[in-house]
Order: sequence, then C-alpha cells, then structure tokens
Amino acid sequence: MITYMGRSPRGIREIIARKRDGGTLSRREIEAFVSAVAEGSIPEYQVAAWLMAVYIQGMTRQETIDLTLAMAYSGHVLDLHSAVPFAVDKHSTGGVGDKTSLVVVPLVAAAGVPVAKLTGRGLDFTGGTVDKLQSIPGFRVNLSEREFLDQVARIGAAISGQTSELAPADGVLYELRNATATTGSLPLIASSIMSKKIAAGADAIVLDVKVGSGTFAQTEELARELARLMLDIGTAAGRKVTVLLSDMGQPLGAAVGNALEVWEAIETLRGGEAHEFRQHCLTVAGEMLLLGDKAKGREEARGLAERTLDSGEALAKFGELIEAQGGNPKVTEEPGIMAQAEWVEEILAPHSGYIVGLDAREVGLAAVELGAGRRVKGAQIDPAVGFVFAHKVGDYVGQGAPLFTIHANDRQRLEAAKERVLRAYHRSETPVSPRPHIYGIIA
Amino acid sequence: MITYMGRSPRGIREIIARKRDGGTLSRREIEAFVSAVAEGSIPEYQVAAWLMAVYIQGMTRQETIDLTLAMAYSGHVLDLHSAVPFAVDKHSTGGVGDKTSLVVVPLVAAAGVPVAKLTGRGLDFTGGTVDKLQSIPGFRVNLSEREFLDQVARIGAAISGQTSELAPADGVLYELRNATATTGSLPLIASSIMSKKIAAGADAIVLDVKVGSGTFAQTEELARELARLMLDIGTAAGRKVTVLLSDMGQPLGAAVGNALEVWEAIETLRGGEAHEFRQHCLTVAGEMLLLGDKAKGREEARGLAERTLDSGEALAKFGELIEAQGGNPKVTEEPGIMAQAEWVEEILAPHSGYIVGLDAREVGLAAVELGAGRRVKGAQIDPAVGFVFAHKVGDYVGQGAPLFTIHANDRQRLEAAKERVLRAYHRSETPVSPRPHIYGIIA
Repeated sequence: MITYMGRSPRGIREIIARKRDGGTLSRREIEAFVSAVAEGSIPEYQVAAWLMAVYIQGMTRQETIDLTLAMAYSGHVLDLHSAVPFAVDKHSTGGVGDKTSLVVVPLVAAAGVPVAKLTGRGLDFTGGTVDKLQSIPGFRVNLSEREFLDQVARIGAAISGQTSELAPADGVLYELRNATATTGSLPLIASSIMSKKIAAGADAIVLDVKVGSGTFAQTEELARELARLMLDIGTAAGRKVTVLLSDMGQPLGAAVGNALEVWEAIETLRGGEAHEFRQHCLTVAGEMLLLGDKAKGREEARGLAERTLDSGEALAKFGELIEAQGGNPKVTEEPGIMAQAEWVEEILAPHSGYIVGLDAREVGLAAVELGAGRRVKGAQIDPAVGFVFAHKVGDYVGQGAPLFTIHANDRQRLEAAKERVLRAYHRSETPVSPRPHIYGIIA
Repeated sequence: MITYMGRSPRGIREIIARKRDGGTLSRREIEAFVSAVAEGSIPEYQVAAWLMAVYIQGMTRQETIDLTLAMAYSGHVLDLHSAVPFAVDKHSTGGVGDKTSLVVVPLVAAAGVPVAKLTGRGLDFTGGTVDKLQSIPGFRVNLSEREFLDQVARIGAAISGQTSELAPADGVLYELRNATATTGSLPLIASSIMSKKIAAGADAIVLDVKVGSGTFAQTEELARELARLMLDIGTAAGRKVTVLLSDMGQPLGAAVGNALEVWEAIETLRGGEAHEFRQHCLTVAGEMLLLGDKAKGREEARGLAERTLDSGEALAKFGELIEAQGGNPKVTEEPGIMAQAEWVEEILAPHSGYIVGLDAREVGLAAVELGAGRRVKGAQIDPAVGFVFAHKVGDYVGQGAPLFTIHANDRQRLEAAKERVLRAYHRSETPVSPRPHIYGIIA
C-alpha cells in the first residue's frame, strides 16, 4: 500500500474528513499533508476536496500559521544573509496600475536598506511586476539564485521572477485554488502570500493590502482581518512585518498597462507627478526604511524617503538595477525606447460633472481585453497597450475635456475598451469628499 | 478556449462557487456539469471540489432529483420493455451478511413478476451480490445486455454485474467520493443509488435501507431521511418505489462470507432456517410482489411469497437461473461443491450471558481481514472464508457453548478474526428486549 510520509491514503482521507466536519488539524497533520502536496504524492482531487473544506470551514490562526510555515519550508529557502546582513521585501495584494515596486525598490536601496524582491507574473485583471519590467528592452527577470544574491550584495537591490523551487506546495495549491473556486479564502490567501515571502528570506516585509473593487478584500473590514493574520504569521516566522491598508477603489496612479506603468514609475523617480501615486510610494518606502532602522519614527523615515527621491539617487539606483539585469538603462532618460502602441486615442468626457468613482476591476478587465494582461497562465501580453487617466475620483471634468487616453494595437479592441472604461466612470453633479488613500498602518 | 457543453472553464468555476456559497444550482447547470463529468471533460480536481461543496452545503430536493436524472441519463439506459412488459428490481444500501437478493430474485420470479437485477461488487466491509454468486462454480456474472434481456424474457430472472456504460457519471463520482471523504452525503448517496436503478430500467424498485453500525445510516432518523429522498427521486422518474427500513445493528442471518452466504440462501430456499433472515426475505419479496400487482394488499403478498418459498418453486427457479448463467445447478442440492476453507474452527462462549449486541461493522471488517472482502477496488477475494453465527442478539449463551464458527485459509488470520469477532459481541446478565428488525415501510 502506498504511504504518504508515513500516512496511508486512509490517513489523508481522515485529514480531509476532519476539516470537512469543521475540526482542527494538528501541526503534524498539516506538515504531512503539505509535504505530500509538494512532492506530488497526493492526487490533485484529494487536494481540491481539502481546499474546498478549508474554504468553507475555515482555519484557526494556529492552523494558518502551521500551514504557512509548512508551505514556506516545503522547498528551497533563500539565504539572504549570505549576501547582506539585513534585507527588506515588499508585497502588494495586487491591484490595477500598481507599479509601486518599480519606485520603492531602488528608492529604499538608495537610502541604504538592501531590497531583495522575488515576484510573480500577473494573472486575471491585476498586472505583475515581472511583466512590467519586461517592457524594458533586454531586462532579464529570471535571475539565477547566485545572480540574485550577488546583485543584492553588490548594488543593494534586485527584482526577479520567483522560481518553482520556492514554496513548491504553494505552486500546486495556487493553481488548484484558481480552478476550484477556492481563491477567496482568508487562510489560503494569507498562507500563499506569506509562505513565498518567508521562503524568499527577507528579515522585514512591508505588505500593502489593497481594499476595494480591484482586489480580493472588497471591504476595509476584510482587509484588516487579512492584514492582522499575515502580521501574526510573519511574527511567528520571526520576521518584522508592517501592513498598510490602501485604497484600490480606483486604479493606482495615472497609467495602467505595462510599458505605460514603467513610464509613470520613471516620471515619479524623476520627481514629477506629485499626485497620489508619489505619496503612496513615499508611504511604502518610509515603512520599509523604518523596518530597516534607518529612522527613529515614521515622520523621519518618510522625510528620508522624500529626500532620496528628490535628490535623484533613487532614479540613479533604478538605472543601476536595470543595467545589472541586462536592460537598457537609457530608458530612465528616454522611456520612448519601450514598445509603443500603434493607436493612441484621447477620449473626451461625454458629460460634465464630478468623478465619484472609477471602478478598478472594470479598468483591469478592459486592460486585459486590450492585451495588457493574461486570462490564462502562460498567455502572451502586449507591453505597449493600456490607459493613461487624465482625471480620477474627486476631479471636476467639463464636457469635451480630455478624460483618458487609450493605447491600443487593434481598432476593435480599442473601441471595446473605450466603452468599458467609460462605463467604469461614475459621475455626480455635486462634489463628494474623497475616500482616504491609506486606511491604516498595522505594525 | 475549451468549452464544456457550451460552458467555459469559468462557467464550471461559477457552478462550483455557487454550491460553495450554499446556493442552488439550476437543472441546466446540473445537466451541463454531469455531462462533462461523464465525458471526462472536467478535471477530477474540479469535480472533487464540487463534491466537497455539496457534502458540506447540501442540496435541495429538486437539485438532488435533477442530479440523479442527469446521472441516470449520462449513459446507456436499459430498455427492459423490449424483454418484458413489467419488471421489478431491488436494492439494499449494503450490509453485512446480506444475501437477500439470492433468495428474493428467484422467489419473486417464480411467483410471476420478472426481476431484472444489475448489481455491483462489494467494497470495504460490505459484500457484493456478484462476489457471492461467483462462489458457484461456472457462474457468469457479466452477461451481455442481449443475454441479460433474453434471460429475463425467457425465465423471468437475471442477476448480472453492472457495466460502466450504465450511469457513467456515477462511476466517476463514486470513485472520487471514496477518495475525498465525501461518501456520507445524503444527496450524493441517494443520487448514486437511484441513478443506477433508473438506468437499469425496472418499472418498480424495492429499496432496503439499512439502519445501524454496519451501514451509512447509523440512526433511524437518517435512514428515514434517505428513504424519503429516494422515494421522491423514484417517483419523479416515473417509477413505483417502496422503501423498507431494516436493522443492520448485527449481521443479517447466520452466515457472513461469500460461499457461506450462498449456502445460507440455499438453505432458506429449501425451507430451512426459520429465523429472521427468512422473515426478511419474505418481507422484501412481499413488497416486490405488491408492486408487481400480484396481490391486493401486504398480507396477501406476503402469503404468496411464503407459499412460493415453501412449495420449492423458488428453489427450482434459483436452479434455473444458475444454469442459465453457466453455473452448476447441482449447488442447490449439494452446496459443498463450492470452495471450502482449510480451517473450520468452532469458537465457544468465553462467558455466560445474554447477547445484547453483535457489531455488524466489526464483523464485516473481520471478514475482510479473513479475505472475504476487498479493501481496494480490484482486489481478489477468497470465496470460502467467513463466519457462521450460532447465536445472535437476544440469545442466552452458557459459558463454553458454541458461539460461532470461523472458516479460514490462514491460521494467523483466523486468530485475528476470532479476537475481533469476540470483541464485537456485547453481553449482559439480564435479557434485553430486542430491537425490531423492520423499522418501517415507506411507499
């Protein structure tokens, strides 16, 4: 009879049955299950049944911590201390137009705290940092572990796609969750994110949990619950963790689309674009510097971030990072060397009024339709296409004024995207008080 | 993009998600899902996740009926009317020592109602009718459809193993339920049983729902719920259905084990063994004859069953059935031509007292250990081994009196089975009033 880590198939069925009935699994049981998942010795249908049982019945905090650590240690764990004595990482729970990493990784490194960021590809309506960076000609996103560690040691910053060796159990569970409608489970989300972050080896992690239509946590309450859970997991794993709660009711910044977002990140690093995206980057970078002990308090950390940005050191570090990873550093001076779309159309406001909403999820789906994102794993994406928003929530726009620009390589897709984004705008005759961008910081 | 009966993978995920959240699926959705299961176009992990969602969230009566009919019509449906104008079938939800079909199929046929019975193999601790019949030298359990229909037309009775063409969706779901700890779900059990019975084509069906440790329905309440659900499904499919609730707190009759059970069935057909197994057979046969309009009421039907049994016509019909299916009909005169065990040991009562319990499940598991049943699908079974109980619940047994006999082909297994069965007996100094054998009849 085949056994899984000393467990018979009957043993695996008992683990499934306990969770099915709302019971609690021991650390030993969770470790046995996760090991078997990682080595592929449990059939996928048993894993799927277990995922559904977890989705519906939930997990205790201790079970979630045990699950995360078992997943983190299910494969290779990066030893960043062989490169630097201390490193910080950041992660956002995914959003539309979220190019924050492109700004804060070089910024924090320039301010003296090494940043080692492993990241995933985009799926569904949220983009991935790896996809954005690949808009830069020559940029290599798949560094070997040696290259990654060497680069962190040498220039204090590296961004690379994560390999399947990292938390391999998460790789299996992530794919199955997507296929079995079990993505939206708090313990499964928290363990997926945190297992990869723990395996990636950073001493400190800043998590940016998004709230709103363009993300899992559609309410602030749910986002807070996820934030506290991830904080507890990180603490149990001996990491310093800070969690931001930030708004994703509308896209972040002006650009949505891969090369367009790199462009906006470069603009921000050059000191331009003083809108909420710059503020967001300074907040995230400030928290990273605070965890890196570069400041005594939040104000001081943010001041350091602002000075590093305005001095041009962050931009210079981004150039260094691009060059180190084989990309053309000229992009920081001439973003136009990235792919550009054949059609660029400015869309004018069909009516006057105050903008009271711009649905991030709808914008994300429209971007996928243009070719900026992928519906299924492995699909090709078009780096050039996307949107640039001239006006967002809170603005008054007169009829006929420029509202947004579409960059497209196909007329039909352009028309469809235009209609979808226009429907994503909500307007009012009277101004509304804008919602905060940052809902809270939990540390 | 691959589509399943016009549904995208996203559509399948939506069906899973609706059930996950406790929602209700439409007939259209259930039909699309079941078709895809039958043709193998849904990955097993999606089916497994759906099964777990159904297990935990349940199904409405209408959903269960829709599921059953979709499963019944997911493959070939037998046209019994091409053989006989009316046929009856029977099914028991599985028990230990349940050889009822071997008696009632020939009995009811001898009384003039054609019986067409397709049946499965045993799994886990309950035996299968197919396995029992294979104890008879030469007996063929895998008739072709043509042979099966011809035999029903010619002699009014046939018993054959069901093929995978019958309700193929059930075949997939049944295997996955076993692997994913989702067997014990009322809608899944009811739809599994009834889909096969509906596809097998009989006009009328007598269901014997077992209550007690040796079966799924460990309480009378749960058994009643299952009974009513199956009755409703059968009625919705245009079938006449009667459901018996009968005790499986202890094994049925004296013998447990394949050849031993055939032996007991033959004894019963010969008019011997006037204990509760004979009564059970007469009750089941009476209900079948009643559905076949051979009597005006229950009393009359039971009288007809009794006369048919006592006249020897039932035994003669069993001989005819055996001969028709290639078996040696001499077995009805000389059961000793079946395989016999090397070791036959009489076990004496270690203490005096009234027997107040004999755990059917434990006896079933002990029989599996002897080799009478299979732990995994496809395993070989030993037809000769098993138990014959001299005393059962309600009896007073003096210390040293014969309690039961073990038939074994291995000394070690014999010793282990002996200990297990002795532990399955519960005794008391004072007599207890026995529980009823039949809890109720629902029609």
